[in-house]
Amino acid sequence: MPVTREEINAAAARVAGHVHQTPVMRSDGFGLPLQFKFEHTQVTGSFKARGAFNAVLTADVPPAGIVAASGGNHGAAVAHAARALGHAAHIFVPAFAGPAKIDVIRQTGATLHIVEGAYADAAEAARAHQEATGALDIHPYDAPATLAGQGTCFREWEAQDLDADTVLVAIGGGGLIGGAMAWLEGRKIVGVESETTNTMQAALARGPETDIEVSGLCANALGARRIGRLAYDLATARDLQTVLVSDEAVAEAQKRLWQTLRQLVEPAGAAALAAVLSGAYVPEKDERVAVLLCGANPAPIPI
Amino acid sequence: MPVTREEINAAAARVAGHVHQTPVMRSDGFGLPLQFKFEHTQVTGSFKARGAFNAVLTADVPPAGIVAASGGNHGAAVAHAARALGHAAHIFVPAFAGPAKIDVIRQTGATLHIVEGAYADAAEAARAHQEATGALDIHPYDAPATLAGQGTCFREWEAQDLDADTVLVAIGGGGLIGGAMAWLEGRKIVGVESETTNTMQAALARGPETDIEVSGLCANALGARRIGRLAYDLATARDLQTVLVSDEAVAEAQKRLWQTLRQLVEPAGAAALAAVLSGAYVPEKDERVAVLLCGANPAPIPI
Repeated sequence: MPVTREEINAAAARVAGHVHQTPVMRSDGFGLPLQFKFEHTQVTGSFKARGAFNAVLTADVPPAGIVAASGGNHGAAVAHAARALGHAAHIFVPAFAGPAKIDVIRQTGATLHIVEGAYADAAEAARAHQEATGALDIHPYDAPATLAGQGTCFREWEAQDLDADTVLVAIGGGGLIGGAMAWLEGRKIVGVESETTNTMQAALARGPETDIEVSGLCANALGARRIGRLAYDLATARDLQTVLVSDEAVAEAQKRLWQTLRQLVEPAGAAALAAVLSGAYVPEKDERVAVLLCGANPAPIPI
Repeated sequence: MPVTREEINAAAARVAGHVHQTPVMRSDGFGLPLQFKFEHTQVTGSFKARGAFNAVLTADVPPAGIVAASGGNHGAAVAHAARALGHAAHIFVPAFAGPAKIDVIRQTGATLHIVEGAYADAAEAARAHQEATGALDIHPYDAPATLAGQGTCFREWEAQDLDADTVLVAIGGGGLIGGAMAWLEGRKIVGVESETTNTMQAALARGPETDIEVSGLCANALGARRIGRLAYDLATARDLQTVLVSDEAVAEAQKRLWQTLRQLVEPAGAAALAAVLSGAYVPEKDERVAVLLCGANPAPIPI
């Protein structure tokens, strides 16, 4: 069953007061008129807080509390939501999540497990913890409550007078783009992946169970090995357009965001903008384009 | 003659299209509910672009172009406005303006003069250039066109549904706080100075011609030696409340802004928030408080 707009409406009511309404802004400083939503100003520094709160608030949390495996941003969001709602949390991250994301988790008071190896190793350790304790596992992207929570970002954007034909959104595991596809009607959505985290492109070309090897600048935020099934099904139903950007284009977009709007985002947070600046996505004349900035837990921490 | 709301209305029409409408945001993440305006996302990274555009657009610019002396942000704003409007510009800055501000100026294509010594030495060199060439000198704060331009920030904020009893604004030479006082009616304004850039406090205590020695973390942005007369007159007419914050409180506010909203501002940009976080300003129960974040050209450049 796909996530419905009604479920996103309900999620919005549920997470209100727990998450920021994130600001929007227009700028002509990038060579074409663009609209932005600063979702990186969200609680814990990424959109993930929306899905985490919605998932915890709709679950029956057992005495063992909550467990999550994460490249970093999802773990930080779950850890924060757990604390805010009075639950214990165990968060498993690979060391490459980096100090910014790991520090955010540590500050919540959650029990932090830094796992040697790749994200898959952290996921395995989290699964073992879940089986041993009965803790509630919050999936980072491929669960209806998570995806409905991320959908509230786009519902909020429309309530802020989003004035766009096209909305560019980065794709990791598919929670955020899934929320966009579940909410937005009558607008084109363009999914943006880095060349070395191209789960959606690979799945649309070779089938939903295609695994990829992830690497590069965006790997600790967009580094799912396989696109979530919920997002895949929405993408095929909608004939989602996706584009790829290089790590160089992502780094350039990060720099331009600082120079033009004084926003410091992580690589994944700049991927959607990179698609426009690099020419991976070329808007038509007069096409109104909106860009979601989705995360700002860079490494190293700037301050 | 004080600057009027009509002049600020005219300035807003004049600068529209040249400057950003900067975003606003609420957060409960600082221990009390706060409203923010992200004026540091302004073109060239500070509110100064508003006054610079208004001043250039209302002036009869001579063939020799424009000259400005600046601790950095004003120079960057004037350089940008000059280029955008097709004028030559010579900008004189002391070396302590720092690489971020100096780089912004350099990128505009303005002729940059880095002057040994203090801000006063840069101002002296600018004056000599003005006398030799007849270039138009744009004052950083104590001129009606500059102050009316800064006032557009508060006009815009009210149009964005500012919902505050009290607005906290940093004071340097008085252009920004002057704009606030010229525009805002029926709200309390609190002027915030660092302990070692306290021009307004000194002038209110000892008279408008009081010079101070400036130093510390905020000196390259709030480091006027004497408050502007326009701002002083508005402050005495309104009985402006001012508070002082330590450099330690400013640095802590910078850090909290990053942790909570992922906004990286320069020290002066965080001074207004520091007043609330340090207890230099203590709101009444249920007092609705708004904080202007006014600049984000820190050194070193983070990216």
